[in-house]
Amino acid sequence: MKIVLLGSGAALPTLHRWPTSLAVQQNNEILLFDCGEGAQIRFQQAKLKPGKLSKIFISHFHGDHIYGLMGLLTSFQLAGRTKPLDLFAPAGMTDYLAFMQNLSHFSFQFDIQIHEFQTDNKELTWTFDDYSVQAVRLQHSLFSLGFRLQEKPKPGKFDAIKADEFGIPNGPERHQLQNGQAIELANGTTIQPTDVIGPPQPGRKIAICIDTLPCEASIRLAADVDLLVHEATFLSDMHDLAQQTGHSTIADAARIAQKAIAKQLLLTHISARYSKQDEATILKQAQSIFPNTVLGKDLMSLSLSSV
Amino acid sequence: MKIVLLGSGAALPTLHRWPTSLAVQQNNEILLFDCGEGAQIRFQQAKLKPGKLSKIFISHFHGDHIYGLMGLLTSFQLAGRTKPLDLFAPAGMTDYLAFMQNLSHFSFQFDIQIHEFQTDNKELTWTFDDYSVQAVRLQHSLFSLGFRLQEKPKPGKFDAIKADEFGIPNGPERHQLQNGQAIELANGTTIQPTDVIGPPQPGRKIAICIDTLPCEASIRLAADVDLLVHEATFLSDMHDLAQQTGHSTIADAARIAQKAIAKQLLLTHISARYSKQDEATILKQAQSIFPNTVLGKDLMSLSLSSV
Repeated sequence: MKIVLLGSGAALPTLHRWPTSLAVQQNNEILLFDCGEGAQIRFQQAKLKPGKLSKIFISHFHGDHIYGLMGLLTSFQLAGRTKPLDLFAPAGMTDYLAFMQNLSHFSFQFDIQIHEFQTDNKELTWTFDDYSVQAVRLQHSLFSLGFRLQEKPKPGKFDAIKADEFGIPNGPERHQLQNGQAIELANGTTIQPTDVIGPPQPGRKIAICIDTLPCEASIRLAADVDLLVHEATFLSDMHDLAQQTGHSTIADAARIAQKAIAKQLLLTHISARYSKQDEATILKQAQSIFPNTVLGKDLMSLSLSSV
Repeated sequence: MKIVLLGSGAALPTLHRWPTSLAVQQNNEILLFDCGEGAQIRFQQAKLKPGKLSKIFISHFHGDHIYGLMGLLTSFQLAGRTKPLDLFAPAGMTDYLAFMQNLSHFSFQFDIQIHEFQTDNKELTWTFDDYSVQAVRLQHSLFSLGFRLQEKPKPGKFDAIKADEFGIPNGPERHQLQNGQAIELANGTTIQPTDVIGPPQPGRKIAICIDTLPCEASIRLAADVDLLVHEATFLSDMHDLAQQTGHSTIADAARIAQKAIAKQLLLTHISARYSKQDEATILKQAQSIFPNTVLGKDLMSLSLSSV
């Protein structure tokens, strides 16, 4: 699983930090979380394949999280996309796409399935073949969603050496065991799947909490994750401004990671007021609370290996 | 007068050609023509000063000409802009800004004066202190406007040597002449302003015709201009596709410049299908018809000196 930070900036983009957007590539599929202006350019720069993008999740309707969406979608259209796309967003997305298509007098020629999170929902989980994505309402100045991407546990490993020791024939019996069924050997011994198959391997877990005050919902989304991507708009001395604007400080983000017992923290949505000179301070503030912190940069890529 | 091409690409952006946007800086003011996705990043890269941007002209509502507008405007908002802004666009702009503000739950804190060009208008001219901008409907698949920016003529030069020869005192009489009034000398001779002031100097003229078939309106807008910025989406062998999609070929653009007796042609809105290897061909096709042609590139800057 590869995480590519396409835009690591807050509302005001700088030359080095563009607005929020994050790609998660797993197996042969790419998921996009938020789509700030320029996301399609960053997508190209990161050499991600547009045809692999299957699902887009939008946290909220502040411009720095959505102004790249129409450009991305119309580029797919112009490139002749036929593959359907799923779009998960707060209520309002259907109206937005309809308004924009009407403004520019066009219709999408590929199917965009919109899944709206209604404002009176507290949480929703969308389940797919190999993973699920849970959306929970965060605390921001505008209705905003946090996400938890969780892979399904993978089956335990088949222990061929043990199987040989039991005298299990090298045939359909082994498949039966892998499918969870007990078998009986010619000598009358019953072999349970757990005799030759290890415990299931937990899937990878990522939480993405962007544009939020530090809140219980984020701790819950990030419980025990391999990676928490959390907004960290301000240095800790700007706590009051963070509160007023519905954002988190560096220390807030680090404490969420600590409380959630996350394995790693990726800081993003960094205010334009901070330059390269401030990066050491940002990292120090976070690491004094949560050591395994990485400061996000545009086009940074992180790999999460299977357990 | 400095022209900065912020985005020289057509609908599908490439890494080197972003969607359409063009800045014209004159005196202490910047005008922006179209505002494709990423325009605010290019604006920063070109080191243009946001505070100088006073007017934005939008040709039409296809995404590659407007998807950068909301980002630019909200960045002004976040940066605390108070200076008003004039926005000239086809009818629909008021609804668009209202919809987007409602979607993101915010209001602009600086005044945006929207000047809509109604679809039943044939042409409009907006007149300012030192220049005017004429908008005329072009021929495209969507209602689309071309523009002609024309500086007012500058007063002719006062010929101080001639004035001395006439014996005009070095005082208020000379100001009177510069203000267009005749004076009478002590010896009874009447001096007309034209006796000591040269002919008015014509202002600079630019035409911008982007997203259009080759048409009479473009020739009229570009008549005798110092610079015609014309779309040239396709090489000349793709004439049929250009016709179908409401665009111009390289040869079309060059012929418009030729018929309009423009002084210089800047080609822009180049299709993503053409790479750096095709640039020599593009330029050759244009220059075989209109020699003084420049092929646009992102962040290219051209200066137009006063006559």
